Amino acid sequence: MKKAIVLISGGMDSAVCAGLAKEQGYEIFGLHINYGQRTEKRELKAFNDICDYYNAKDRLVVDISHLVAIGGSSLTDKNMLVSKANLESKEIPSSYVPFRNANILAIATSWAEVISAKAIFIGAMEEDSSGYPDCRKVFFQAFQETINTGTKPETQINIETPIIDISKKDIIIKGSKIGVPFHLSWSCYQNEEEACGECDSCALRLRGFSQANIEDPIKYVGNG
Amino acid sequence: MKKAIVLISGGMDSAVCAGLAKEQGYEIFGLHINYGQRTEKRELKAFNDICDYYNAKDRLVVDISHLVAIGGSSLTDKNMLVSKANLESKEIPSSYVPFRNANILAIATSWAEVISAKAIFIGAMEEDSSGYPDCRKVFFQAFQETINTGTKPETQINIETPIIDISKKDIIIKGSKIGVPFHLSWSCYQNEEEACGECDSCALRLRGFSQANIEDPIKYVGNG
Repeated sequence: MKKAIVLISGGMDSAVCAGLAKEQGYEIFGLHINYGQRTEKRELKAFNDICDYYNAKDRLVVDISHLVAIGGSSLTDKNMLVSKANLESKEIPSSYVPFRNANILAIATSWAEVISAKAIFIGAMEEDSSGYPDCRKVFFQAFQETINTGTKPETQINIETPIIDISKKDIIIKGSKIGVPFHLSWSCYQNEEEACGECDSCALRLRGFSQANIEDPIKYVGNG
Repeated sequence: MKKAIVLISGGMDSAVCAGLAKEQGYEIFGLHINYGQRTEKRELKAFNDICDYYNAKDRLVVDISHLVAIGGSSLTDKNMLVSKANLESKEIPSSYVPFRNANILAIATSWAEVISAKAIFIGAMEEDSSGYPDCRKVFFQAFQETINTGTKPETQINIETPIIDISKKDIIIKGSKIGVPFHLSWSCYQNEEEACGECDSCALRLRGFSQANIEDPIKYVGNG
């Protein structure tokens, strides 16, 4: 059975990625990254729930909390405020963790090379994202070349970004059709019990469910 | 003063890189990676000694020992033997840590972006290396493009590989001319007190010093 490493943050995009990898016949190896984010515990639970749901063959949790020591992001630096969402802004928000996706993909590639996985699924979105530079197609193309040149000649690993061109709305519609367990996922950058509804991540999620005319099954502060 | 992150493993190549960065007028930020290698303690000492020698402005030690959990290398997997050097072989040796340099450069780039460093110095060598795929120029070129596409528009970081085309012999001659403290460096993959003289890394170092007609100032087993 062909193997895929699926990056499962616990968010809804990663849940959809796991569902799509399963649909394509891959055996799933779940990789979760803890980079010292505020909501790590809740995300880890979501990761494990999604791995269970899709019968992951193996799972790996990697701590890269040195990104906390390096700083520069409100996601990992408790002294910075998580900014409230402004979906119209062209600025890169304070939640941007410098070069995070390269750190994550490097780990995924090391694992993929050792277990001979053919694919790495990552739920990045260019269109509807928050303007993070390492969520863009050009970045993933460059990283693919880095994999091609930096691994053994016999190693063949493709980065799969199945939702990079899709809007949040369409990801939700697509995920609903293939039975993605949105109720197990967690997106909020701020809270761990009930989602705040106000951070970038909540705002994008809520707008997506609203546009898709589907009810978001998780709890938000005040709507409980 | 312009800033450079210098990857300082503690080996002689990284000591020369630090010397070259200093020569070019950079303020040095030393970055040391612990990836669960057998000789970590001795390398960490060498890192600190070299940082002291070059008055590093700041230093950061990052643990990526998840590469141990991932496995696949005799450097990090205690169940695999460190193979004795065969400098004529075309095979990638068992000490290869899958995609290690991408993991390291990703961390360096995150730090560089936060502190606005303009350069990352890494002492990789293509010609005289052990055939690791992630030590080749094509790999560093691809990673440069990954940095260009995966960081903020205003971020400008260059990967500097000043010894990539130079033989070990010429690195030693060059380093000697600019006063690189070879006596503080450590290269052995196997031992921490006296270098084994038999692993890939020792074999390359010894051949280099011998060809350069310079005495290696560190101690080897048996030459007390």
